[in-house]
Amino acid sequence: MTAGRGTGTQMTRDKVRIGGGDARSGAYAPTSSVFSCVHLWTTKRCYNLWMNEPPAHLAAVHHDGSARYVSTAYPKLGDLVTLRIRTAPNAPIQAIYLATLPDGEQHYAPLKALPPTPTCRWWEVTTEVNMPVVTYRFVLFTSQGLWFYNGAGVFPYQPTDANNFRLIADYVAPQWVANSVFYQIFPDRFSDGDAGNNPTAPAYEMRRWDEPPGRANPSREFYGGDLQGVVERLPYLEALGVNALYLNPIFRAPSVHKYDVADFEQVDPQFGGNAALAALRQALTERGMRLMLDIVPNHCGSEHAWFQAALRDPQHPHGEHFIFTAYPEYVSWLGVRSLPKFNYQSQALRDYMWRAPDSIMRRWLQPPYSIDGWRVDVANMLGQYRETRLNAELSRELRTATKAENPEAYLLGENFFDATAQLQGDQYDANMNYRGFTTPLWDWLTAQNLRNPTITATLPPTQLSTAGLAAAWQAFRAPVPWMIALQQFTLVDSHDTARIRSLVGGNDGLHRLAAVLQFTYPGVPCLLYGDEIGLDGAGATEARRTMPWEEAAWNHDLLHFYRRLIALKRTSTALSSGGFQVLYTDDDTIAFLRDAPDDQLIVVGYRGAAVRAAGPLTVAHGAIPNGTHWEEMLTGATAVVADGALPLPALLQGGMIWRMQQ
Amino acid sequence: MTAGRGTGTQMTRDKVRIGGGDARSGAYAPTSSVFSCVHLWTTKRCYNLWMNEPPAHLAAVHHDGSARYVSTAYPKLGDLVTLRIRTAPNAPIQAIYLATLPDGEQHYAPLKALPPTPTCRWWEVTTEVNMPVVTYRFVLFTSQGLWFYNGAGVFPYQPTDANNFRLIADYVAPQWVANSVFYQIFPDRFSDGDAGNNPTAPAYEMRRWDEPPGRANPSREFYGGDLQGVVERLPYLEALGVNALYLNPIFRAPSVHKYDVADFEQVDPQFGGNAALAALRQALTERGMRLMLDIVPNHCGSEHAWFQAALRDPQHPHGEHFIFTAYPEYVSWLGVRSLPKFNYQSQALRDYMWRAPDSIMRRWLQPPYSIDGWRVDVANMLGQYRETRLNAELSRELRTATKAENPEAYLLGENFFDATAQLQGDQYDANMNYRGFTTPLWDWLTAQNLRNPTITATLPPTQLSTAGLAAAWQAFRAPVPWMIALQQFTLVDSHDTARIRSLVGGNDGLHRLAAVLQFTYPGVPCLLYGDEIGLDGAGATEARRTMPWEEAAWNHDLLHFYRRLIALKRTSTALSSGGFQVLYTDDDTIAFLRDAPDDQLIVVGYRGAAVRAAGPLTVAHGAIPNGTHWEEMLTGATAVVADGALPLPALLQGGMIWRMQQ
Repeated sequence: MTAGRGTGTQMTRDKVRIGGGDARSGAYAPTSSVFSCVHLWTTKRCYNLWMNEPPAHLAAVHHDGSARYVSTAYPKLGDLVTLRIRTAPNAPIQAIYLATLPDGEQHYAPLKALPPTPTCRWWEVTTEVNMPVVTYRFVLFTSQGLWFYNGAGVFPYQPTDANNFRLIADYVAPQWVANSVFYQIFPDRFSDGDAGNNPTAPAYEMRRWDEPPGRANPSREFYGGDLQGVVERLPYLEALGVNALYLNPIFRAPSVHKYDVADFEQVDPQFGGNAALAALRQALTERGMRLMLDIVPNHCGSEHAWFQAALRDPQHPHGEHFIFTAYPEYVSWLGVRSLPKFNYQSQALRDYMWRAPDSIMRRWLQPPYSIDGWRVDVANMLGQYRETRLNAELSRELRTATKAENPEAYLLGENFFDATAQLQGDQYDANMNYRGFTTPLWDWLTAQNLRNPTITATLPPTQLSTAGLAAAWQAFRAPVPWMIALQQFTLVDSHDTARIRSLVGGNDGLHRLAAVLQFTYPGVPCLLYGDEIGLDGAGATEARRTMPWEEAAWNHDLLHFYRRLIALKRTSTALSSGGFQVLYTDDDTIAFLRDAPDDQLIVVGYRGAAVRAAGPLTVAHGAIPNGTHWEEMLTGATAVVADGALPLPALLQGGMIWRMQQ
Repeated sequence: MTAGRGTGTQMTRDKVRIGGGDARSGAYAPTSSVFSCVHLWTTKRCYNLWMNEPPAHLAAVHHDGSARYVSTAYPKLGDLVTLRIRTAPNAPIQAIYLATLPDGEQHYAPLKALPPTPTCRWWEVTTEVNMPVVTYRFVLFTSQGLWFYNGAGVFPYQPTDANNFRLIADYVAPQWVANSVFYQIFPDRFSDGDAGNNPTAPAYEMRRWDEPPGRANPSREFYGGDLQGVVERLPYLEALGVNALYLNPIFRAPSVHKYDVADFEQVDPQFGGNAALAALRQALTERGMRLMLDIVPNHCGSEHAWFQAALRDPQHPHGEHFIFTAYPEYVSWLGVRSLPKFNYQSQALRDYMWRAPDSIMRRWLQPPYSIDGWRVDVANMLGQYRETRLNAELSRELRTATKAENPEAYLLGENFFDATAQLQGDQYDANMNYRGFTTPLWDWLTAQNLRNPTITATLPPTQLSTAGLAAAWQAFRAPVPWMIALQQFTLVDSHDTARIRSLVGGNDGLHRLAAVLQFTYPGVPCLLYGDEIGLDGAGATEARRTMPWEEAAWNHDLLHFYRRLIALKRTSTALSSGGFQVLYTDDDTIAFLRDAPDDQLIVVGYRGAAVRAAGPLTVAHGAIPNGTHWEEMLTGATAVVADGALPLPALLQGGMIWRMQQ
């Protein structure tokens, strides 16, 4: 468009007008750039080394989507929302503007500076939620330049919009999730409640409960675990403190993992059939516990009746549910022929799977099963095949369908990679946060590793640096709306990985450190059954070992530790909804603040093998007042903030959780 | 999914398997992280300061979409493409893997290391273009860790996919663009060929050609320029060397800028009507010149018959083309009531505008007008209004329609902000690259400035650092496919901004520096009429001054300089298609390589006010051999590379373009 237009009408805004009243034309005043290295810049910003140096006071600048910073957690389209940003109390910041993009056009609005407090200054502005996704950043006017602040840090230039902060309109969250702790159960391996439904030879290879898995064909080894077994162990789980179960697939399928579904409408008789699921639901409801099942909409097993019909006759109505490249050749998941991929060009298939009121994904959300959520297998691949790119469309349909059945259903995608495009409020409520949390943590605790069996090159023995850990986490948090970030499925292992105990080489301090970070990072943690008693397993197959119920085999100290963590997670508003600010990193130490108006926690993680000397941890840039009293939740140690720092004791490998005493 | 599955079928690939043969479990070996500052790391990488330090040899790592690195410029779906990456010849890199995401799932493929040459080592891998957009990055195995290399640089962790390199399948480029130089004409102000069609008082305020614009209502000031005037000046333009015209709107409209279109089907009689356009087309064709017009699909002028009909009767068939919030209230562009916004919920409107064979956008692509492209006004806002988010859908439709008429048509969007989502091959061929090129350049040449009239706070007098300039450019280049990057509309000013001459305060060296960067950065440059003779204009209104045709008023040295730049741009394969690698930045100096197999250029820009002392510029990490001879294209100076460096003479403000002599 054009500045200065206006056909007989007063022009109210120009998009771009350069020069004019405050034009810099003719006022060319070169200023030498600052290129010194920024040793003193302690924490969290991502910027190029060679760029203008951000002034040190910007370390105290913070904004995220939590209650201190955003007035309305779940705004509707058209709502006015007040946004706040925190700076150091006397920082030389002349002005801050909010930059938004209403209907695609940049808009700037000045923030109002509130009077400084002893620890900080708040700035605020009210803006309208005028689009389904409002993205925004802040522009800080300082004597050392303009700084553009988004979820990825501060930049001396206008970055792309990819890491803008964002508000999502009309998003309905499954409110129960943020206060939950999940417990993942691989049903064949957790508890055998009914020996009568156990698979039997010769059709199945049965193992004794105390035998390790992992012979020639691990997907055909059975141990007899079932849903009645889960019901019987609910007192154990209740005592542990978890309040939500995630069950690996339970629908009828030939393998033990049951990702090769033969019938989406029947719980496998090996697990007790549909009646056992109804009974489990009932038992969970009595204890106020939630239930999430695992579904595979991407493909089915080759024994599924639809596929068998299609294979017999490609003209069969079910023929269109599959992708026959040249009949009888068909597309399958990663080329595994027992897992034919669904073809969602078929509208009928969408109806079967989720759109119809009695569709598979909706039926299990209904009584008597009333499950509370779906974990969607390979959500990254659903609907993707060469030129066919239906993933976003199908994910939106899945959401619409499940939320129509139950707005509080939790829709969790499995995506080992970058899932951020699926996490903008219109698709999944959360992702299994491997790439955004877990794999950087592993690389920091142990060593960098691509964890892919096709890699034959020798991996270097290098660990990810602590700052690299913070940066990796930030990179995946930045593009995700805050209310989604709080629901991210935070795990340190799963049925698809080695167990954390083995990943850290049995090191108890590192195991606990991993757990502390898992329970204090934004998101909802999920324990893999048995991690709490120190179960190990060096690979995915080994990890699926049976839960030992002889308590003598348990690590009771560890179990006690997990109980404390779980209890804290379930009761702390800082952990369920508080803001997140990295306060400090050094070679082996990371410290961050979880910050709710009524609850503040400082988490310190230390991976070093040597004792870390006692010393002060600067927390003033987290607006922590001097004189505040803090208690460490795992040891009961206490400390008082003085001179802007929390005095830390000497540290061993592990994690600490300091809570401000009110 | 689950590792270790396989129901009777050999499982060929696991997604994730941790542990097993080369498991690091039990081999926990902490390695101290490297946190020293990286002064010696000279150029282009984006990473966190506190992360693992990349080894210095990674400065020589390079990949982009140009011919040295990608075997097939325009692959079809299913094509095999060879990708290459360049490293230092004897760098301690043990292995490099290509990471792709076929159908959403991570895939790693090892690169083959070719024998080292004296200057570098090439690694290559062949991959299938198995999706419409193939995104990829490289994983480098070094003794100092794993490094993930994408368009944004190297990272010690897996970054998000946002800045992955990308190949686009089945993309049809307007091949003429990359070798073109555009010349932008604001028709009322360029040349008055026919006084008979001039607007007349009292309906119009006419000005004398030598009067400056800018009185009370600049959009109602007329000077009488027209299309016949353009035809008459074609010999001038041909001598200048430009070969494509971009005309601001010419359809009938009440204002001088004509963004308030009253009739999309008629060239304004003030400019000579449709016949004048046909004549211009004919004259351009005779000279082998191209023609791009400016269209406003986002809105029309309030005098347009559709809007008048809708305003009289909201039930009129044209009523649905507008957004009546509460009749007669309607939505307009940025609240300017003379510019009612179109409502593309109307399918009929889409037919009128671009879908039907005789639609507006298709008709002008047909004889006798046969225009070569459309510049689409406010492409960022098209179809966006509160919950209505049709922008991507409409942009794709626009593309389909215009390409159906002429696959070689150039579809250029106007988007002052982050347009990268529109530049993935399915929407626009290019954007007016303000955010990705122009505004960082201005901030580097003069001072940081938001260039928005709503800003009342005092701007700091800080310049963007040189490294910040490189980082800003990289941030916007990274998410864009290379073949689109080569077509990006590269400008230093336009009818919507001050003129570059005024922006740099009349400083001739800085003006030339801006031009050198404009002509050597990846993309297709566009001159605003008169920039080549030193025309100034401190704001958008002032910039739209008339072209003076008395040659005594011209800066002939500057004109000569532009002619050389234009000639070089039109003949250099390095500039039309060569790779881009920043070789060096310091406080006031930037140097980059444009690198085609048959043509290498090293561009050096220097903004400092003081003389820059002569000295060597390290170019070894650009794989430039010792002993090569170079000639500077603007001065004729020569130099020979020795000890891995190009010996630069002392520099004044301005730019140099060194070309390797074959």
